[in-house]
Amino acid sequence: MKVSARNVFKGSISAVLHGAVNAEVEVSLGGSDKLVAIVTMESVRTLGLTVGTDVVALVKAPWVMLMADGSDIRLSARNCLRGTVKSVEPGAVNAEVTLTLPGGTEVSSVVTREAVSELGLKPGVAATAVIKASNVILGVPA
Amino acid sequence: MKVSARNVFKGSISAVLHGAVNAEVEVSLGGSDKLVAIVTMESVRTLGLTVGTDVVALVKAPWVMLMADGSDIRLSARNCLRGTVKSVEPGAVNAEVTLTLPGGTEVSSVVTREAVSELGLKPGVAATAVIKASNVILGVPA
Amino acid sequence: MKVSARNVFKGSISAVLHGAVNAEVEVSLGGSDKLVAIVTMESVRTLGLTVGTDVVALVKAPWVMLMADGSDIRLSARNCLRGTVKSVEPGAVNAEVTLTLPGGTEVSSVVTREAVSELGLKPGVAATAVIKASNVILGVPA
Repeated sequence: MKVSARNVFKGSISAVLHGAVNAEVEVSLGGSDKLVAIVTMESVRTLGLTVGTDVVALVKAPWVMLMADGSDIRLSARNCLRGTVKSVEPGAVNAEVTLTLPGGTEVSSVVTREAVSELGLKPGVAATAVIKASNVILGVPA
Repeated sequence: MKVSARNVFKGSISAVLHGAVNAEVEVSLGGSDKLVAIVTMESVRTLGLTVGTDVVALVKAPWVMLMADGSDIRLSARNCLRGTVKSVEPGAVNAEVTLTLPGGTEVSSVVTREAVSELGLKPGVAATAVIKASNVILGVPA
Repeated sequence: MKVSARNVFKGSISAVLHGAVNAEVEVSLGGSDKLVAIVTMESVRTLGLTVGTDVVALVKAPWVMLMADGSDIRLSARNCLRGTVKSVEPGAVNAEVTLTLPGGTEVSSVVTREAVSELGLKPGVAATAVIKASNVILGVPA
């Protein structure tokens, strides 16, 4: 599989909640890392998404928000993945920041250099990757 | 709270509509400015999102679309926030455009320089910031 | 209509599926090209979105993911639009890649230059534009 998304997470489905139009799917990534996706019920049916199904979860790096450690706030985003900054690669305006999660999963994000500076992001620092469930795409083998 | 999102709006919840998987939450930002967010019902429950709750609404700048004034179109995006261009900061390919809304809220967006030119965006010009409700993240004090 | 979104697709609604909060709207773009959008029920009501309504579908280029041809995977994203690369315009970090679909529709995406290289994207090559239905904004004449 070759996709432009910088985040390709392998896992298996650990829970599915059905709605009329959308469904909420929880994916266990290995270790204790988990990711929740909102997909349409039509996708649940056509891809056969049930508990135990092996899937990949795709997330473009610009869809990931970062939060500094010690932020005294709880977010509606279903995926608040606490980890450690592995690397910061600055561009002209933006920077690509990669976190390592406790279970070993790596998460890449693109944020402004201004944000990197404000949040004090550098290798070794704790930070949280925030991903809205509706921005996660699931894939199964064809 | 330190987050990478360039838009951090403070407000309080003025309406909640429940669905099976998702809920629609209206946030009053002060002045007459309002923002609608779609979050999961699980977030409504765990964060205790009810009418009157103080929240912050987070939106990454690249998730904001801009529309020139006088566009003869109505959009499905629940947040079409009409304001005035405060500043345009051009980068190599993109530009950061900040609008001021009537109630005083400022909204930052990242769009292409090509779009800035096509839409004639410069300080003082009227424009509309378009934000899909599903791209708004809500936060409450921890 | 002047909007910053690089993708403005004209079409007419060919199907609508109602939920409690959200609705799924299928737009026929001409030729055999189709696009599915998730919008709120409130938008369905206020914009009068029913089968046969002429609409525009707006998608910002950074919300489009690309997949190389021959990928042995099926995705939950409702819009997997197979086409041919028309152009690749490299920037410092990202590149704008435009595909032409069989029905003639053009789709612009912004992905990293790293992804362009990994996927072997260049004019004439087959590729798939992946767009989550929740990232499509619909518009009707005012």
